[in-house]
Amino acid sequence: MSLSPETREKLRRVSTATLSSALYKRGLRNQMIQDVYPLSPPKESMVGEAYTLRYMPAREDINPMSVFRDHSHPQRRAVEECPPGAVLVMDSRKDARAASAGGILVTRLMVRGVAGVVTDGGFRDSADIAGLGFAAYHHRPSAPTNITLHQAIDINVPIGCGDAPVYPGDIVVGDADGVIIIPAGIVEEITADAVEMTVFEDFVQERVRGGQKTFGLYPPTDESNLEVFAAWRKERGR
Amino acid sequence: MSLSPETREKLRRVSTATLSSALYKRGLRNQMIQDVYPLSPPKESMVGEAYTLRYMPAREDINPMSVFRDHSHPQRRAVEECPPGAVLVMDSRKDARAASAGGILVTRLMVRGVAGVVTDGGFRDSADIAGLGFAAYHHRPSAPTNITLHQAIDINVPIGCGDAPVYPGDIVVGDADGVIIIPAGIVEEITADAVEMTVFEDFVQERVRGGQKTFGLYPPTDESNLEVFAAWRKERGR
Amino acid sequence: MSLSPETREKLRRVSTATLSSALYKRGLRNQMIQDVYPLSPPKESMVGEAYTLRYMPAREDINPMSVFRDHSHPQRRAVEECPPGAVLVMDSRKDARAASAGGILVTRLMVRGVAGVVTDGGFRDSADIAGLGFAAYHHRPSAPTNITLHQAIDINVPIGCGDAPVYPGDIVVGDADGVIIIPAGIVEEITADAVEMTVFEDFVQERVRGGQKTFGLYPPTDESNLEVFAAWRKERGR
Amino acid sequence: MSLSPETREKLRRVSTATLSSALYKRGLRNQMIQDVYPLSPPKESMVGEAYTLRYMPAREDINPMSVFRDHSHPQRRAVEECPPGAVLVMDSRKDARAASAGGILVTRLMVRGVAGVVTDGGFRDSADIAGLGFAAYHHRPSAPTNITLHQAIDINVPIGCGDAPVYPGDIVVGDADGVIIIPAGIVEEITADAVEMTVFEDFVQERVRGGQKTFGLYPPTDESNLEVFAAWRKERGR
Amino acid sequence: MSLSPETREKLRRVSTATLSSALYKRGLRNQMIQDVYPLSPPKESMVGEAYTLRYMPAREDINPMSVFRDHSHPQRRAVEECPPGAVLVMDSRKDARAASAGGILVTRLMVRGVAGVVTDGGFRDSADIAGLGFAAYHHRPSAPTNITLHQAIDINVPIGCGDAPVYPGDIVVGDADGVIIIPAGIVEEITADAVEMTVFEDFVQERVRGGQKTFGLYPPTDESNLEVFAAWRKERGR
Amino acid sequence: MSLSPETREKLRRVSTATLSSALYKRGLRNQMIQDVYPLSPPKESMVGEAYTLRYMPAREDINPMSVFRDHSHPQRRAVEECPPGAVLVMDSRKDARAASAGGILVTRLMVRGVAGVVTDGGFRDSADIAGLGFAAYHHRPSAPTNITLHQAIDINVPIGCGDAPVYPGDIVVGDADGVIIIPAGIVEEITADAVEMTVFEDFVQERVRGGQKTFGLYPPTDESNLEVFAAWRKERGR
Repeated sequence: MSLSPETREKLRRVSTATLSSALYKRGLRNQMIQDVYPLSPPKESMVGEAYTLRYMPAREDINPMSVFRDHSHPQRRAVEECPPGAVLVMDSRKDARAASAGGILVTRLMVRGVAGVVTDGGFRDSADIAGLGFAAYHHRPSAPTNITLHQAIDINVPIGCGDAPVYPGDIVVGDADGVIIIPAGIVEEITADAVEMTVFEDFVQERVRGGQKTFGLYPPTDESNLEVFAAWRKERGR
Repeated sequence: MSLSPETREKLRRVSTATLSSALYKRGLRNQMIQDVYPLSPPKESMVGEAYTLRYMPAREDINPMSVFRDHSHPQRRAVEECPPGAVLVMDSRKDARAASAGGILVTRLMVRGVAGVVTDGGFRDSADIAGLGFAAYHHRPSAPTNITLHQAIDINVPIGCGDAPVYPGDIVVGDADGVIIIPAGIVEEITADAVEMTVFEDFVQERVRGGQKTFGLYPPTDESNLEVFAAWRKERGR
Repeated sequence: MSLSPETREKLRRVSTATLSSALYKRGLRNQMIQDVYPLSPPKESMVGEAYTLRYMPAREDINPMSVFRDHSHPQRRAVEECPPGAVLVMDSRKDARAASAGGILVTRLMVRGVAGVVTDGGFRDSADIAGLGFAAYHHRPSAPTNITLHQAIDINVPIGCGDAPVYPGDIVVGDADGVIIIPAGIVEEITADAVEMTVFEDFVQERVRGGQKTFGLYPPTDESNLEVFAAWRKERGR
Repeated sequence: MSLSPETREKLRRVSTATLSSALYKRGLRNQMIQDVYPLSPPKESMVGEAYTLRYMPAREDINPMSVFRDHSHPQRRAVEECPPGAVLVMDSRKDARAASAGGILVTRLMVRGVAGVVTDGGFRDSADIAGLGFAAYHHRPSAPTNITLHQAIDINVPIGCGDAPVYPGDIVVGDADGVIIIPAGIVEEITADAVEMTVFEDFVQERVRGGQKTFGLYPPTDESNLEVFAAWRKERGR
Repeated sequence: MSLSPETREKLRRVSTATLSSALYKRGLRNQMIQDVYPLSPPKESMVGEAYTLRYMPAREDINPMSVFRDHSHPQRRAVEECPPGAVLVMDSRKDARAASAGGILVTRLMVRGVAGVVTDGGFRDSADIAGLGFAAYHHRPSAPTNITLHQAIDINVPIGCGDAPVYPGDIVVGDADGVIIIPAGIVEEITADAVEMTVFEDFVQERVRGGQKTFGLYPPTDESNLEVFAAWRKERGR
Repeated sequence: MSLSPETREKLRRVSTATLSSALYKRGLRNQMIQDVYPLSPPKESMVGEAYTLRYMPAREDINPMSVFRDHSHPQRRAVEECPPGAVLVMDSRKDARAASAGGILVTRLMVRGVAGVVTDGGFRDSADIAGLGFAAYHHRPSAPTNITLHQAIDINVPIGCGDAPVYPGDIVVGDADGVIIIPAGIVEEITADAVEMTVFEDFVQERVRGGQKTFGLYPPTDESNLEVFAAWRKERGR
């Protein structure tokens, strides 16, 4: 049911751009979390199952600083319960005027082996988080404590994040272009398709760098290009 | 626990403006649902307990037109289950590019004795709804069927609507200025305060129309105004 | 090739909401011109073939007031050349800070028998236009002369209007919910489908007003409702 | 120095659209207050000298409800000191999430003979204000008390309102299209130009309604139209 | 009255995130200047008293290039008069479509010993400014000369910047998360609180990196953690 | 008619800030493409004649993945036909929710000797493009394939890009501040003016770094500064 190590590894080697094309071919057009950015340039893709946290607007009377003393506070529980290998995805209603989380909680996620964290709001302590070498994506830095505007209310329910639908267990992939959500049920086929497309795109990219024009090559409407590709592929064992 | 007929009646006679001042005095500053409008000029205030529906972004593969054949579809269940006297409040993530509901469902709510309906998105069949004489508030008309962008996912959970926090059972009041949310636990005191403030504001409004200046009157820093007010009030039995 | 009188008449009796559902069933999700409003409450639907005008951002040196002395100025040509029965649709890049057109030009369109005018910007002389009894849709009133920000550049090319694609000859339908674009090639089938859906929706609306619950009726998963509908329909000759 | 009764009267009979064209001809392109609306359909134009109020963001510790007990509070002073015949223009930083003023203060302005009130935020008690028959323009209704977000800080200083520059003493004109600011120093010439343009536009509008095409008429590049206009004008004594 | 060297030094060692929490505890929720970014990664925090410049929308007739010949032009005066050690904070009405200032003026501020510069608009010559090693925060780069859209109008008055209230003399602190405003009257207590919180957060961060879970530690509801903290603190002499 | 090598070279040594001032002096205020950013820090300015591509909103039925098999597809033709030395400028209606182009096409542009590429939307494969050392400007990264939302419709027509007017053949200059459009007809005079201004600004910058105050120097109202400048200039042979 969960992501196999093989698929996880394959997903690390395909881009969110290629994945979005594979999803598009199946009629899925809104799987990209819009307008989120990695806090530091990704060295490799972030891959993991979605574990979600839902925020709603905060109400002043139920958000004194002391709320965090309660172990059942959903933000704190999410940080301790998000499974290793998963990605914590936060629905912050695209509101970055207050933080979704800060350096300590993100560090805890990293230490626990979580694969990454995403919010459509913002993180505080952004320089510290950027320095962790941990996959973290947000809209922009935001210093104010989350309870200024956000009330954590639900763990691991279906949410929206950056206008994309995110169901618990969906597969989350992030790279320099941002973060995409692959429905759990089609991850194998999408991955296979994306891996194939990537091989061809690598070939095309090499040819284009070498001076070949795109007509007939991308897409390969000129059949001779398919032959060259077959040879290229064989040679590289891909 | 639910709204008493007396409180309901009192709330009909105070404005959302006055209620927002009463809430402000208790430190609650974000209880107004921002940027929603009545579909027709309200003849009287809408008052009721909040019953909520949460939408998330739609995913194409799970939203064929046939989804509505399922009686457990949350949008349809909400319409049949929202209690008479309550207000159905929808979290449409402030996205009015597709409808939150249309004329038939809003008519059903009206026939069932529901007190009103609010979305921070938009309604389709807006002219029909405007003609019903039923309290309905949205951001703007929106013809596209809700499943174009919205997936109903939860019934009667805490939500955000127009950036305000809405908990099931909170009291919802709407007038020409928009819609405000009163936390359930303080509705009696807020109502009492708002009723008192309204008596004084009515007095001030009458005096100002009669030509009195606001200094000393509003607020009544000139004590003599309080005496005049006392007499005015007695005379009117308020 | 152009809209038949029969189809035109049928389209006047179906709503943009129903049309959007018919388009959705064929995979078309973005045909609604977003965020435009009629300048006066529509008495009947606006229906016509799209005739387009494209604006680009204005450049100060080529937009003295005297530009309008040139008969080939695209804005003025569009007003004189848009065919009777067609709808003039303007791509104003969703920028209502300057006008797309004003009272005189819209009056000329009306006198010439044009079916309506739509901009995703704004009209000046909005009260005059509202008083014409002519179908006009915009985002909001805007007094500044169009050359302040807009340069008319092309007539009858494919455009975007309110984020919807509009090709010359597409069918434009407007009502209180806004304006929808039907691709020319499928107008017959979409109209037929929408007319059928409207008959059923009228039946449902009547039943719901009469107190019937929506489960089993809308959609008609309870077969008995289909029998009642058949009888209802026969009786009304629809 | 102030607006003469004659100019005031003339300005009542020209539109903001025509005034914006007259200003455009003098190189002034940003004098329209963007995105404000009259609370009720204007029966006649609002005309007056600008008297300004500047809001800044509120700070919680200096905005208890009791601030209004101070007669020197700039919002309250502005309401009592704005001269009869002037228009009170408020810089609310285009933030309508809290009110700029409410029914009592607007009533006081009306009773004092002020010509109108404009904010690029919102008014509370909007239905009451709409019922006054007083010229009031805002972005949208807003119930929360102004101190929730706004701190009145300055009276009669140069401000921005809806992205337009407003200097105290500038002339403010409002109609159904919105509100325009005429620099005080050029009001006579702008008015004279607008009055002339209006005569011609009325002529054109009449001709267009009668079926004449716009080419050669608007603008009058066909000289014969100027002769017809001269006769038309003479006949009407304009 | 002004910032003591000790407090200034302490503020350099606490984060805007921690300061925002300290302000939140005192009921101040809107002190963060929203959506501004350092032009280069800050090596240390920016700290200084606020000295302000207010822009209003520009009017074309009073903004020829020659305006800057006047030594009393507020933008130029602000650059020459902002005290060493202070931070120049500009209210550009969140409009970055034209520059708030450029490389030469920012260099002058640096040479004069000013502590930093902040605008909620944009700077031109952004690469030059980024290379100065001077604390500068804006929304985004913006090449057009400021008089395209901005008219400098007031020096050292209370302003809004990025939706935060800024009073002259308030303390401004900036780091990678952005810029926060501390009311002058409470800077000592806020600083003291933030320093204390920082010691504890450093401890927590170290423990979390070492593998300790956050429950009971952050906040320290498990008393044993307080003992460990006491020892940790003693050891480090903090 | 096209850009001379001398002018091209001169334009590489002046900033978009200085160019915007030169344009402002001629009354051109909207030539900056708003809100676009280089994908990697520019080492030198991008300079070239504009070659344009216009996108409109995509329609699902005419955008299967197979559209790219057609050599006449405008996006693909633009990539193969944009002249060497020119800049491909794309009107993506400021919508970055889907890509304007990706790594392969941008590489092809680079290999073909095109001078740069600009979109007011976003590029996919943004890290790859950033690594090319090729001048590319966009609003933000965007992974989804362009046909998700964009339909390429026209090549080399006048367009809007980031609210600026762009005519084919206009001169495009980009640096760290963004991208500016110089009307083709005035490029020589604008360049000459900007070169002159740059010499003076370099002088001023050096003086300011050396401690001179800006009054009298910038602008040089103190004549003695002009003498020093003359000497400085002679010495450097500029």
